[in-house]
Amino acid sequence: MSGINLKGRDLIVTQDWSLEELLAVLDLAVKMKKNRYGYTDALKDRSFFMFFYNPSVRTRQSFECAATELGGHAQFLEPKSMRLKTATTAGETVEDAANVMSRYACGLGIRILEDKIAQYGDGEKLLREYAKYAKIPIISMAHDTFHPCQGLADIMGWIEWLSPENQFNPEAVKGKKLLVTWAHGALARSWCSVQEAMLIGSRFGMDVTVAAPEGYDLDPQVLEWTKKNCENNNTVFETTNDLKDGYHGAHVVYSRNWMSSNAYHDGELHKQEEVDKALKYTDWICDAEKMALTKNAIFTHPMPIDRGNEVTDEVASGPRSCIYDVAENRLHAQKAVMALTM
Amino acid sequence: MSGINLKGRDLIVTQDWSLEELLAVLDLAVKMKKNRYGYTDALKDRSFFMFFYNPSVRTRQSFECAATELGGHAQFLEPKSMRLKTATTAGETVEDAANVMSRYACGLGIRILEDKIAQYGDGEKLLREYAKYAKIPIISMAHDTFHPCQGLADIMGWIEWLSPENQFNPEAVKGKKLLVTWAHGALARSWCSVQEAMLIGSRFGMDVTVAAPEGYDLDPQVLEWTKKNCENNNTVFETTNDLKDGYHGAHVVYSRNWMSSNAYHDGELHKQEEVDKALKYTDWICDAEKMALTKNAIFTHPMPIDRGNEVTDEVASGPRSCIYDVAENRLHAQKAVMALTM
Amino acid sequence: MSGINLKGRDLIVTQDWSLEELLAVLDLAVKMKKNRYGYTDALKDRSFFMFFYNPSVRTRQSFECAATELGGHAQFLEPKSMRLKTATTAGETVEDAANVMSRYACGLGIRILEDKIAQYGDGEKLLREYAKYAKIPIISMAHDTFHPCQGLADIMGWIEWLSPENQFNPEAVKGKKLLVTWAHGALARSWCSVQEAMLIGSRFGMDVTVAAPEGYDLDPQVLEWTKKNCENNNTVFETTNDLKDGYHGAHVVYSRNWMSSNAYHDGELHKQEEVDKALKYTDWICDAEKMALTKNAIFTHPMPIDRGNEVTDEVASGPRSCIYDVAENRLHAQKAVMALTM
Repeated sequence: MSGINLKGRDLIVTQDWSLEELLAVLDLAVKMKKNRYGYTDALKDRSFFMFFYNPSVRTRQSFECAATELGGHAQFLEPKSMRLKTATTAGETVEDAANVMSRYACGLGIRILEDKIAQYGDGEKLLREYAKYAKIPIISMAHDTFHPCQGLADIMGWIEWLSPENQFNPEAVKGKKLLVTWAHGALARSWCSVQEAMLIGSRFGMDVTVAAPEGYDLDPQVLEWTKKNCENNNTVFETTNDLKDGYHGAHVVYSRNWMSSNAYHDGELHKQEEVDKALKYTDWICDAEKMALTKNAIFTHPMPIDRGNEVTDEVASGPRSCIYDVAENRLHAQKAVMALTM
Repeated sequence: MSGINLKGRDLIVTQDWSLEELLAVLDLAVKMKKNRYGYTDALKDRSFFMFFYNPSVRTRQSFECAATELGGHAQFLEPKSMRLKTATTAGETVEDAANVMSRYACGLGIRILEDKIAQYGDGEKLLREYAKYAKIPIISMAHDTFHPCQGLADIMGWIEWLSPENQFNPEAVKGKKLLVTWAHGALARSWCSVQEAMLIGSRFGMDVTVAAPEGYDLDPQVLEWTKKNCENNNTVFETTNDLKDGYHGAHVVYSRNWMSSNAYHDGELHKQEEVDKALKYTDWICDAEKMALTKNAIFTHPMPIDRGNEVTDEVASGPRSCIYDVAENRLHAQKAVMALTM
Repeated sequence: MSGINLKGRDLIVTQDWSLEELLAVLDLAVKMKKNRYGYTDALKDRSFFMFFYNPSVRTRQSFECAATELGGHAQFLEPKSMRLKTATTAGETVEDAANVMSRYACGLGIRILEDKIAQYGDGEKLLREYAKYAKIPIISMAHDTFHPCQGLADIMGWIEWLSPENQFNPEAVKGKKLLVTWAHGALARSWCSVQEAMLIGSRFGMDVTVAAPEGYDLDPQVLEWTKKNCENNNTVFETTNDLKDGYHGAHVVYSRNWMSSNAYHDGELHKQEEVDKALKYTDWICDAEKMALTKNAIFTHPMPIDRGNEVTDEVASGPRSCIYDVAENRLHAQKAVMALTM
């Protein structure tokens, strides 16, 4: 990992970082997992700011623990109490806010999801605007388009499960097949986690199949990037509307609900429409029967899981479920990102 | 205290713990009170999660200070931003939530009171369900039925006040009389604190009298446990509907409002009914005249106090009021519990 | 600075402190700015309580960072979840709350602004009541009348900018002219920051001019104190209703919106009336043309700035704008206050 210097880098999507840089994060994350309280000087007495436009228990817990375990402190901030200038209201500019925060903190995490924005892509824009003005790293804690820390935790977990015992070998996922499959349910979930998973899986040399009913296409730009990542690695990228086809030969199955490509129209998100539409596809659930088609695949999910809709209890709590390990890896991956960038 | 190992233990009610275990907590709490910043490695860089279904300033302050003074950090979490699965809504199971939190934190505190549940006992059920799945200690920060950390702070304060000067001798409360008396007011308070006080007082060898108007009976199970604790110690347990009788011979007077046994009906808590009913009993206030019937009793209360309803200013601010010492003891008792279990 | 002992002192307005005491704060703040992580034992494992009756991102960030950088922890508390006794509702007295908090924390910060009180001055009264009962320092984090930590950050920034290069000489502001000018906008801002600026500027030997349209007079008591401070220093205090006069000869220009002296009537704050009235004065903006009348004045503002109303982008982002330095100084000044008083 010599020569890798990530000080000051933003992390908005893993696609912005080189494979070597991502490997450097995983390398440190694995060390931190083995020696959990061995890095308590990394952010000693420093403050990390967390901006939650959307609340989240898991993301907050893992980031706040990460800062604490690095010797620092994460401030839980809700920007609703912050008057930012908009087209129609008086308030502070992002330039001013970012400049002042750069004087106080060692980094700024931002979480902003679908229901806080007018159209897909606005969250990404806000993060890029903060990154433009801030002199400290901007870290996505999940936004409308991407969830890079989840992606890092995912790939770390898959490598752990697919590596020979007691090893951590990133080569272990090369040529393995990742199935990202849509699932039904009432949550109308963001695209950010699955899009990040496709990107990072393909970067690490996995075949990627995306399965979803018609109308559930993801961001064309992300599909394009994933395809290109696969081309660079001579691996296969496929999409299908079939419920079961993708399971054949899979080594990792990622089953999760997401919104349709028509979720935003007339200037806002139509969540109830999405829920009504999604609940009809009751066959789209990851179950033992479908998992039997795979090459003894592991089951992965960024959690929280919607059991009974996205996956059966049998699979989610089964011997090939890596969900708790991936959830734990959020902590280690985030600690590594923070220690390397701040 | 040799042989006492509390690592990993939940604290949901003091009745679950042996007397030796409770004494071990008090022993450490007293040491921590004398040497307040001498235990800052106990939770060094560890995170304690606090789940506040109900808000609370005092409980939050004392737990968050406790974690800080042990070298760690307490996260203030409001589960309303957490989608838990219920009979009618999609969300995460307690099993999943507890398993993931066990990977992040060294312990989980939960506060859930009457207005957040459909019937008395549901809070206790939730704590027990978390305890079933979590691999870290579950600590009650007050729930509908019990408030074990308050109970520990109470008995610690009573022992301090009743021991010979400059000593801390748990034997000092043996054979002394604790009066737990209902008081009027508009707060329709939970049963948790008074029930815990009855249990811990009787465990430590006190005579216990509970006085309340008709219709204000507490949980029959708790009354039964208290009676049994008294039998085991050859002490006296009594209940009365008389306003003054209980004061005779008392060494500790605990005057506090609580809800009637009819507070929950038709599937919910009827708070206004409770307030209207309670406000009629204007005689039920702890005042100097009644305190004159005691054996120079100390006045105790878990705070916040409803002055003028539960107790007169003369008594609450008088020379025999131990209220601020008991409040302070919350900090020390909680530090001891956290250091021993986590 | 020998002989200065600030342990236990409240900071409600800088006018309560001697010039020597304020200089001691600045002296330490400058040292802390140079050696940011060199004072991490000052509040080691101690807790500072922050009571936000009004939310604030900047004030919270700077105080929470300050506590972290001193080795301690600041608890973010919202008193809305605290039942305080009022004339009409049951709850806890300030006496009880202050006494208990004194057992837990090393200091208590309070923020309470116009919209949370019935009339100007009520916030100040609440702080003084807490100070009466608390055994720990009460620090204003901005209240209706004053904002002492902002005042300290202001004067620290002005001294930095007006001192000869690489020096910090409080004499540098002596005899220099401070213009505090009203500006239009839709925010109906509190008087606290500008009043504190007038007081501290005049204490440090500056000439002070206050410019505002008719009807925008500030607190007569504060005007009186400022006048007296100027008399003591043989400097000039002036008020004017003219838009431009005050700029002549100014070394520091402080342009900010504030409410009119008629903002409270009929027992409440009339914010919309204030906004409607203020928006008419579109000439009242600090711009390059007016700044050209000064002696190459620096532009100062406590932030957040209402750009386009209070000041033009050209001035706010220009080479003589000290706004980010002043904002940063909040951190250093507050660290110094906390280290000296707690």
